[in-house]
Amino acid sequence: MALIDLINVKKLGGELDEAQLAAFANAAADPQTPDYQLAALLMAIRINGMSPRETAQLTMAMARTGDMLSPQVGGTPVDKHSTGGVGDTTTLVLAPLVAACGGKVVKMSGRGLGHTGGTIDKLESIPGFRTELPEEDFLRIAREVGCCVVGQTGELAPADKRLYSLRDVTGTVDSIPLISSSIMSKKLAGGAMGIVLDVKLGSGALMKTMADCLALARTMCDIGRRAGRRMAALITGMDEPLGSHVGNALEVKEAIDTLAGRVTGPLLQVSLALGAQMLLLGSQAQDEDQAVRLLQDALDSGRGLAKFAQMIAAQGGDARVCEDTRLLPRAAVTQPVLSMADGWLSRMDTEAIGLAAQRLGAGRSRKEDIIDPAVGLVLHKRIGDRVAAGEALATLHHNHAPRAQEAHDLLLGAVHISGAQPPRSALIRARIAIDGKET
Amino acid sequence: MALIDLINVKKLGGELDEAQLAAFANAAADPQTPDYQLAALLMAIRINGMSPRETAQLTMAMARTGDMLSPQVGGTPVDKHSTGGVGDTTTLVLAPLVAACGGKVVKMSGRGLGHTGGTIDKLESIPGFRTELPEEDFLRIAREVGCCVVGQTGELAPADKRLYSLRDVTGTVDSIPLISSSIMSKKLAGGAMGIVLDVKLGSGALMKTMADCLALARTMCDIGRRAGRRMAALITGMDEPLGSHVGNALEVKEAIDTLAGRVTGPLLQVSLALGAQMLLLGSQAQDEDQAVRLLQDALDSGRGLAKFAQMIAAQGGDARVCEDTRLLPRAAVTQPVLSMADGWLSRMDTEAIGLAAQRLGAGRSRKEDIIDPAVGLVLHKRIGDRVAAGEALATLHHNHAPRAQEAHDLLLGAVHISGAQPPRSALIRARIAIDGKET
Repeated sequence: MALIDLINVKKLGGELDEAQLAAFANAAADPQTPDYQLAALLMAIRINGMSPRETAQLTMAMARTGDMLSPQVGGTPVDKHSTGGVGDTTTLVLAPLVAACGGKVVKMSGRGLGHTGGTIDKLESIPGFRTELPEEDFLRIAREVGCCVVGQTGELAPADKRLYSLRDVTGTVDSIPLISSSIMSKKLAGGAMGIVLDVKLGSGALMKTMADCLALARTMCDIGRRAGRRMAALITGMDEPLGSHVGNALEVKEAIDTLAGRVTGPLLQVSLALGAQMLLLGSQAQDEDQAVRLLQDALDSGRGLAKFAQMIAAQGGDARVCEDTRLLPRAAVTQPVLSMADGWLSRMDTEAIGLAAQRLGAGRSRKEDIIDPAVGLVLHKRIGDRVAAGEALATLHHNHAPRAQEAHDLLLGAVHISGAQPPRSALIRARIAIDGKET
Repeated sequence: MALIDLINVKKLGGELDEAQLAAFANAAADPQTPDYQLAALLMAIRINGMSPRETAQLTMAMARTGDMLSPQVGGTPVDKHSTGGVGDTTTLVLAPLVAACGGKVVKMSGRGLGHTGGTIDKLESIPGFRTELPEEDFLRIAREVGCCVVGQTGELAPADKRLYSLRDVTGTVDSIPLISSSIMSKKLAGGAMGIVLDVKLGSGALMKTMADCLALARTMCDIGRRAGRRMAALITGMDEPLGSHVGNALEVKEAIDTLAGRVTGPLLQVSLALGAQMLLLGSQAQDEDQAVRLLQDALDSGRGLAKFAQMIAAQGGDARVCEDTRLLPRAAVTQPVLSMADGWLSRMDTEAIGLAAQRLGAGRSRKEDIIDPAVGLVLHKRIGDRVAAGEALATLHHNHAPRAQEAHDLLLGAVHISGAQPPRSALIRARIAIDGKET
């Protein structure tokens, strides 16, 4: 089957059948296939779209271009995917809590790029922690501890790897069918049988409107269900960083503080909501109320933090960080960012805050950049808080970063102070339940 | 200006400004530009279109990526472009006739590919004829003789060369703005100040509907006028080969027979109609009636054939072919194709007839194929003619071609015999005059 024939179908707005979609995925995974034909097909799909059937069949075909895992972990393997936020370290909070309730969290995570952080980078800030494990160790830890978080193992969805990097340079990123198939091809190949999606909405999110978030969540749930997986999704707010800490070791510290019960707030709230869906997906709970009660009990009893320590130890890390977060890497310089005005914190440009942390060395602008695990920033105010002129909005943590002033100015410009108190908006904006019901 | 920004504009259906279109053309001419970005942009343009202003500005920018000729030939340099047909050797008939009436025909032509022939291939079948000349010789001959036909000289519109070959493999050929900019970028760079377009309609043509032909003709005329050129266009029928001869030396023979007054018919009719527009473009005639009278007089007096002989001699060829066409290369084998049925010849698949000649060695399926100048076919019947079973529809001329049987079967399948006499259709279907009036 020639790629040019598929291009001509999508160019005219037609639909590809299952065999044609498999040919597309295989062509993408074949290094012999010229980039220009893939680029033309991606653009035709970006403009003319794909039906739900096409999107699901392409995703399954992309998954099949590489290894297909079926993790044997003594229960339903569950996973979570977030579309990416700032100060969003829910994985480190919910994975131990879900494991403490009997769930089996089998999670492959990525590294940070642009303004968003990556779970793998965060975990690697724990001294000794290993994110690259042989598959048998990965599955044994998931089975015995109940949670294991690694970088990608084996070769998952090589077709996606090729298409993802091409989309980035051909203006074809902003396509819900293509975003969905990229994310879900790796999730399907990873073998989780229950998947909860956290689709972010707001100034720090990929999707900027509720309609786009819902469309993306529905598309990914539809793909998963057609592939025989249990699916649920939340749309959650990203109008400000989820936690107050942004940066790798800083976010691990906040996760530990949360699991220790020293910190509550939006990070805990979203972690509990997502974790509850995972207990439902894994059949550890019958309904959401029960699921939240189980998680809260794991938190209050300290079993969650103990699980995290157990996972860290199993993955080679220094579990003493759970008792003493000062063992995490710490930056040499702390520098406050002071408010210039009196008023209420009314709005944040969350993406700019993520970029400020990146300028301090916490993130990458290109894949090959090296990050500093110790650096980042801590916000002292949230939207709706009263602020006085001269009061610290945030503290920058860095190691004499040459671009610290730029980070300072980015952060100051990202925080809007207004004379009127802004309305608070809900954190959980919408939900697609396991049975498909939307609320 | 980054190409990705232009891709994003066209992807969303927006318009590019003149500077952006120049950046696109320059990127296409730059070997450093990755194919995949050009492919994505071409597909976005294919699907979302371009405005007349965009199309004209892109075309001019493409022309400017290479040499821009301004031929000094002692009069208005005029040119003709055909969208490509079968048995269509109008250039060899009209160029000498127009020159005999004082016109200055400065023509760069191409080689044949697929089912259509190329003027350069035809001329090269004349012993000694040179189609690659230094620019000064080309212009001197055009000035002194009044007509000169060569392959492309210098580097004209290198941006088009790159885009043309990419369009072929990315499903973006069928775009009127892209077809128009490809053709017209080379015409504008070639420096003709008056251009007549021959847009073919029918079973052997690129464009299959009158609406598409008119859209293409209007777009190309608009581009030329915006660039300060005088433009005219005819839409002419290609429901059957224009002449009765298909193949390189065979078509030269037919052109000579036509110039000698031994053959009349559709080839002469279209040559006179196009030639008349060229005399109007070059101001050698005031109106079409006068133009046709001038051309007819050049034909009847033999001055047209004499001009052809003069051009052949000037370009190094053996001009005696004009007196004795047996000096042209001739094939060893002639083989009739006999009708299987009684009736009227009602329809021809002209593209298949072009492909039959190609199978005999007259044309190329790939650019690197080598052609045989002597081979081809001669049709003995036209649409509307009475045919008896066993009567010869055509004669194949070849040099023991291994695929002669395939050519025979292709030709037989391409000729439809019906029980009822078909209506004759007009040869000149529509016209866009120099003043833009359509009739």
